[in-house]
Amino acid sequence: MALIVHKYGGTSMGSPERIKNVAKRVAKWHNAGHQVVVVPSAMSGETNRLLGLAKEITGTPDPRELDMLAATGEQASVALLSMALQAINQPAVSYTGWQVAVKTDSAHTKARIRSIDDAKVRRDLDAGKVVIITGFQGVDDHGNITTLGRGGSDTSAVAVAAALGAAECLIYTDVDGVYTTDPRVVSEARRLNTVTFEEMLEMASLGSKILQIRSVEFAGNYRMPTRVLSSLTDPLMPLEEEMASGTLISFEEDTKMEQATITGIAFSRDEAKITVVAVPDRPGIAYQILGAVADANIEVDMIIQNQSMDGKTDFTFTVPRGEYDKTMSVLDDKVKVLVNSGKIIGDSKVSKVSVVGVGMRSHVGIASQMFRTLSEEGINIQLISTSEIKISVLIDEKYMELAVRALHKAFGLENA
Amino acid sequence: MALIVHKYGGTSMGSPERIKNVAKRVAKWHNAGHQVVVVPSAMSGETNRLLGLAKEITGTPDPRELDMLAATGEQASVALLSMALQAINQPAVSYTGWQVAVKTDSAHTKARIRSIDDAKVRRDLDAGKVVIITGFQGVDDHGNITTLGRGGSDTSAVAVAAALGAAECLIYTDVDGVYTTDPRVVSEARRLNTVTFEEMLEMASLGSKILQIRSVEFAGNYRMPTRVLSSLTDPLMPLEEEMASGTLISFEEDTKMEQATITGIAFSRDEAKITVVAVPDRPGIAYQILGAVADANIEVDMIIQNQSMDGKTDFTFTVPRGEYDKTMSVLDDKVKVLVNSGKIIGDSKVSKVSVVGVGMRSHVGIASQMFRTLSEEGINIQLISTSEIKISVLIDEKYMELAVRALHKAFGLENA
Repeated sequence: MALIVHKYGGTSMGSPERIKNVAKRVAKWHNAGHQVVVVPSAMSGETNRLLGLAKEITGTPDPRELDMLAATGEQASVALLSMALQAINQPAVSYTGWQVAVKTDSAHTKARIRSIDDAKVRRDLDAGKVVIITGFQGVDDHGNITTLGRGGSDTSAVAVAAALGAAECLIYTDVDGVYTTDPRVVSEARRLNTVTFEEMLEMASLGSKILQIRSVEFAGNYRMPTRVLSSLTDPLMPLEEEMASGTLISFEEDTKMEQATITGIAFSRDEAKITVVAVPDRPGIAYQILGAVADANIEVDMIIQNQSMDGKTDFTFTVPRGEYDKTMSVLDDKVKVLVNSGKIIGDSKVSKVSVVGVGMRSHVGIASQMFRTLSEEGINIQLISTSEIKISVLIDEKYMELAVRALHKAFGLENA
Repeated sequence: MALIVHKYGGTSMGSPERIKNVAKRVAKWHNAGHQVVVVPSAMSGETNRLLGLAKEITGTPDPRELDMLAATGEQASVALLSMALQAINQPAVSYTGWQVAVKTDSAHTKARIRSIDDAKVRRDLDAGKVVIITGFQGVDDHGNITTLGRGGSDTSAVAVAAALGAAECLIYTDVDGVYTTDPRVVSEARRLNTVTFEEMLEMASLGSKILQIRSVEFAGNYRMPTRVLSSLTDPLMPLEEEMASGTLISFEEDTKMEQATITGIAFSRDEAKITVVAVPDRPGIAYQILGAVADANIEVDMIIQNQSMDGKTDFTFTVPRGEYDKTMSVLDDKVKVLVNSGKIIGDSKVSKVSVVGVGMRSHVGIASQMFRTLSEEGINIQLISTSEIKISVLIDEKYMELAVRALHKAFGLENA
């Protein structure tokens, strides 16, 4: 007997019929002798419906009130799933984030989990109940409802799994695992049976969109084995068969020994780049620029500063495209004069493409092969950034699909 | 400056456009120098949508999970109204029942309020904010979300008004006040400028449906002046004009001195009567019968026990028609043998019609006029029950409208 956490996405919870299927699957796991905690998302479309209502009322809703509104979607989900389990004679109980309690900071619409009190949950599990907890939300020290931002249900599920010391966290979604790249872009894309935590971190942060980046960070911090699975399979399929499907995010590097150097091609279409031109090359400049951006709660991705010339340097970074205008206005208001910059330029029509793989560490030549492939397709590289297990380039967004297809082929990812 | 509590029904909150109108009205009151607390219902249709989802999942949802589900409707409402107020530069903050906290007992789907902690609310009011609180819901001692049952937003509003010592509780709804009877049944029905608390209690409990009975009880217990008003008027109409519309539930009996003996004709279509036949006329019988019914959380309305004959008596009571089958099965299971009853008979096709008025106390002849009027229309009276300010009769449901029209005319209610 093990303690297992299940997470179900909005599509899996999309209708009463689908919720009943989720209940069947959960009950199957419980009947096999496991303790099960479930973290479901809001029914698909519900969060958008709620945000649509808010938008009809005001273009600039207060983040606290937005959290109050959006949190209702998951609350309805947990109640419905609990009813569906009880209807098939599986004892169950639902809790909101504040009832558990899932404590977060006060950064409304993008809060971070600080602690989870597991007393109620353990008591109910020991009493033979399935426990259902709202994803995506918590409560701050002042009793305000917070949400973790889009995709936050994944993070909640992994955080709950970690807090409870679960054996595994199963993330059921509408895809059946992690692929070498997006199958909608490259039809030869192949499902990976395992990826390492670090690869997944790069894949998720680079826009593979299967798991929210913070859920992968959580999984890594707590070494929580996390499996991505499809919820579209027969809910009553045998357990062993179900476990063999999907992709396991593993913490055992040696399982990768036999595998290819490159695990996958990640990409993110909606990027924007901004360059603060000709800033004095002195200590504190990077902080002065990015501190103001971070204070505005804008997430920065790539950061590049090249060798200075004549005591001046150009400081470049990327942000999600939706934050481009806001970032530019923060820089104009607070940073430009402060850092005595020549000017600030940007481009909101760029995409990022990355090759990812732990095998890269011990192989030379990955970078040169990547650059040669892009060159052969006539694609200009605007920025380059590297880590131990990935190389990312920023390119004109119109070449993104072409670049992904060419790289997938060049690294032979269609063959296991 | 006074502290005023506003309550808005589901129709008033039915769309983003209507919510903006509510915000305009609330801001008008605040701008006139008042402190305002608002208790809105869920958007019209939302509670039914949620209960519909539950019904698709199971015919017998757990009451705790049903409360978890239904409470989301009001939570979305308070957030949207807060946004709408902020959008017109009126500082506002929303709270759920558990955040305030509104403490209730644990009778899920029909909980009762035990206490309201007003600390947060007063702090925000003093800071110049409009405070918006979810109606219909609270939290029990174990941290479970409870709901007060249909119409519970009215009760919440009056309870909040009482807890805060508000000057008045304004209940905005889709009718513009309390009428001598339902205008859909009698076109000559007339709006009352004032009714006494006791009359309103009889009118509400007898099915006038404008205010939930428990909200009127609360208003009475705390002598909270409560006004029923239309939310369909121009939200920016002058305050004095707005106050002159609607019906005030008053606690000053002498304001009634000049008025008619009878205030109105109340009725309730969906009644059921049950008679436990030939029970021994001994102490404790009534408790043995109704105790079992109350334990099943079924509300009993009329209770009639006539003079016994030969040491036996017939014990009759009425319940809402929807509870008829459940009540019969409770009686069969638990009561029949216990009280040694001959048999249990019932009729679920009956309606109640009542004449109500504080003036009745000092006038003879009301009862005889009522019975004569019904007799002239050929309507048989099945049960009679009286209080100081009302006389109720139970009749075949098919004569209900006829009885109401005839009584309204007989007591001259069309003329002020």
